[in-house]
Amino acid sequence: MNTIEGQVAPRIDEEIMAPVRRQMRQTDAFLAATLHADDEYIKQLTRHVERYQGKRLRPALAHLAAQAAPRADAARPNENENENENEAEDLHVKMAAIVELIHLTTLVHDDVIDEASLRRRGPTVNARWDNETAVILGDYLFASAWKVLTSLPDLRPLAILSATTRLMCEGELMQISCRRSDEALSEARYLEIISKKTAELFRAAAYLGALLAGAAPEQAAALGEYGFHIGMAFQITDDCLDLVGTEQQMGKSLGTDLDKGHLTLPVIHALRQDAAGAPRTPGLIASWDRARVVRWLEASGSLAYAQDRASAETQRALASLAELPDSPAKSSLQLLAEYVTSRSV
Amino acid sequence: MNTIEGQVAPRIDEEIMAPVRRQMRQTDAFLAATLHADDEYIKQLTRHVERYQGKRLRPALAHLAAQAAPRADAARPNENENENENEAEDLHVKMAAIVELIHLTTLVHDDVIDEASLRRRGPTVNARWDNETAVILGDYLFASAWKVLTSLPDLRPLAILSATTRLMCEGELMQISCRRSDEALSEARYLEIISKKTAELFRAAAYLGALLAGAAPEQAAALGEYGFHIGMAFQITDDCLDLVGTEQQMGKSLGTDLDKGHLTLPVIHALRQDAAGAPRTPGLIASWDRARVVRWLEASGSLAYAQDRASAETQRALASLAELPDSPAKSSLQLLAEYVTSRSV
Repeated sequence: MNTIEGQVAPRIDEEIMAPVRRQMRQTDAFLAATLHADDEYIKQLTRHVERYQGKRLRPALAHLAAQAAPRADAARPNENENENENEAEDLHVKMAAIVELIHLTTLVHDDVIDEASLRRRGPTVNARWDNETAVILGDYLFASAWKVLTSLPDLRPLAILSATTRLMCEGELMQISCRRSDEALSEARYLEIISKKTAELFRAAAYLGALLAGAAPEQAAALGEYGFHIGMAFQITDDCLDLVGTEQQMGKSLGTDLDKGHLTLPVIHALRQDAAGAPRTPGLIASWDRARVVRWLEASGSLAYAQDRASAETQRALASLAELPDSPAKSSLQLLAEYVTSRSV
Repeated sequence: MNTIEGQVAPRIDEEIMAPVRRQMRQTDAFLAATLHADDEYIKQLTRHVERYQGKRLRPALAHLAAQAAPRADAARPNENENENENEAEDLHVKMAAIVELIHLTTLVHDDVIDEASLRRRGPTVNARWDNETAVILGDYLFASAWKVLTSLPDLRPLAILSATTRLMCEGELMQISCRRSDEALSEARYLEIISKKTAELFRAAAYLGALLAGAAPEQAAALGEYGFHIGMAFQITDDCLDLVGTEQQMGKSLGTDLDKGHLTLPVIHALRQDAAGAPRTPGLIASWDRARVVRWLEASGSLAYAQDRASAETQRALASLAELPDSPAKSSLQLLAEYVTSRSV
């Protein structure tokens, strides 16, 4: 699988990020300041984790949603417009940093769980230091997210993100529980798991970005829907890449899903086909080498099936943008929706 | 070491808890409701963790501090006194549950870190299920604490507890970093570590309990000081018990500090004495059997030194209560201060 046939992947840095380049730089600076620690060991760790940041999709989503949302209160006269704009930008930067801190927490803890050694072409925290450091560092990042959250003058992000982070843990626990069970995972259950563990944070990023920009509730909800569906498309694509990508291209440990017994969409589909080359039990797949898995998934049309499913999520994301007025930020969100399924693999 | 000589350990259930028995029952019920999940696997896990609760010192501290603190606003006339009292009690129950949820998070994650198999005379989550379940379950408990926190009508607990939980992680990371270093840990550094990882949560429990009960800031701060010092006494005693207690008495895995290379107060003191039987390097102690460690610590007077240090913290805790009016709750706090150092070992 390379990029989806006939489609050119949008270039994320140049095209998609253009409207929010300044805000993303401010978010990076704010994150670095938030993670600063006097203790030498903690300083080493947080610097290492800052390098985990790649495309920073979630902060970008928050900033783009803030710009794409029409303000419900735009007509209100305002005497101190410049001052208020600076304050508003500050609020958006913090919101974007919070979402990234929550995401970084899950990366650090997931690497412990997956016993992964590679992330962003460098060693994981558990590999370079140890598991105990990675467990507590994850907690430190999570606590740091809350420290920023409690400094916001607006209480709505607290309520949304406390519910979202609990859902994320529920999704992860459901995934572990399915792995421990003998039953084959259904597609419906798989979709429920990835919606909780991944898509809800994308929803929260877009929804809160819009809400804090003064969007009307229904516009913020539409942007939240957009975020949710690109989150779904992103995770389905990521799960395909875990099966058929290469570590050199992706810069992180791959194949961990099968090693850990996690069944993802292509495998669930292939098991359902019961085609030639299918394993007698799902557990057997973990012992197969990668080439055999890929042959089986291709023969049963399962990679194409999963890609179609991801594209359907992208279409739903795009449909959620229909009511928004045209703007550079809206164009970026449209490109971003294509980008998440067309990442070259 | 049995109970401190000549001192009878106060009976925690009958004497200390008497003024807050109803509130503690409500806290238990609220915790059970908060941890309820529809998913069968999560339900099993949270039920298992509910059994980790033992003396529930931190929620008791929050409730006792609320009762012991004189209200700064007591003279204010109040038309709906009963209704407001119910609301206030509700607030205290939630506050106590939040503190216990944060504590439960640290227990579950510490057991992963310490590779402990026994907790409250039953298997740990990592032993009965696995490490990945325990890592994510800890995150789930932490997220649950924030979910309750964001439902409070008062914002002060959010600010205090986001700072406190970050300090707790800092303390844990400093402890891990010291273990990884070759230098012998100084007593000052040890005290800084336990103040962050343990005593600050005791401080927050007592301070917030008093604050939410309407105490004047200086009274709340005094109760916070009390909490901090019993937290210090508690942790020093716990570290002694890890060296010389028995798993049957304590109901949890012991000896994990030495196994993991964590130097605690008795060992730090003994190394400083450089007496007969001292190891050439701190790292050697991990290879000694328990009896040899205890002989060495007793010969160098190090257990007695640590007990004295814990008793000094107890005295500072008691001194912090001096300005409070007499009440059953104040008497309980006085007994609690003695209890934490006199736990039978």
